Amino acid sequence: MKEHYFEDLKVGDRFKSETYKVSEEQIINFAREFDPQPFHFDATVARQTMFKDLIASGWHTAAISMRLFVQTLNCAEGAIGLGVDEMRWPTAVKPNDVLQVESEILDLRESRSKPSHGIIRIRNVTTNQRGEVVQTMMASALVLRKKK
Amino acid sequence: MKEHYFEDLKVGDRFKSETYKVSEEQIINFAREFDPQPFHFDATVARQTMFKDLIASGWHTAAISMRLFVQTLNCAEGAIGLGVDEMRWPTAVKPNDVLQVESEILDLRESRSKPSHGIIRIRNVTTNQRGEVVQTMMASALVLRKKK
Repeated sequence: MKEHYFEDLKVGDRFKSETYKVSEEQIINFAREFDPQPFHFDATVARQTMFKDLIASGWHTAAISMRLFVQTLNCAEGAIGLGVDEMRWPTAVKPNDVLQVESEILDLRESRSKPSHGIIRIRNVTTNQRGEVVQTMMASALVLRKKK
Repeated sequence: MKEHYFEDLKVGDRFKSETYKVSEEQIINFAREFDPQPFHFDATVARQTMFKDLIASGWHTAAISMRLFVQTLNCAEGAIGLGVDEMRWPTAVKPNDVLQVESEILDLRESRSKPSHGIIRIRNVTTNQRGEVVQTMMASALVLRKKK
């Protein structure tokens, strides 16, 4: 993917990521380290819940989505996250799901405090292999401007 | 920590977590897997940025905060995350920072679609060893009610 500076982006631009398959082992390992709740790491317990199967931590879904987003937008010297709004997990992620992120540029503005950077506002939607939405969010990030 | 059901919680209740020290190795490993931007995994590059040091991915801060929150609130059969709003990272997390989460119950309501559960709304504030705020967020989650 091409490297992007602030000036390369336009409101309405859309980017589609590669795909990422998440294994049962990855779901369990992430949960044991960061979200130690039985329905995230114990398949026997998980089968008795409303989900009927192991489900990934929402923070694991968020982290995978970040990986896919970073590789796709590929901002020059990286994008520095400022904040996230309206993050929702409408469908649970289960073992062997294949995730993909679509990003849309919602807004672009100059940074007053850091003239070397601009601020982008994006919407990221993560879907599974059946096209079901597993995560939506909006985020703001600092992106480097081209040197004049 | 005591196990909590929906009925055990009141608006205004506050909970303080244990602490968690994050190493340079953990910051680099998380970044390589989920947020592969140089200022998160390459100390030499990071020292030339506005941060002057390696900084943790915001998603790593969020994941550590979840671990601390889950262990502290300790909801019976777990808390099922519905969404997160207004997540901000006002200060970067650096190697060897010691993080702690304070949670406040903002709202409690019954779930119409799942009568076995209630919905809690919380504010989580994560601080470092100097008391600086590294993350704030609000979240909603399903929590089990006591069986009558």
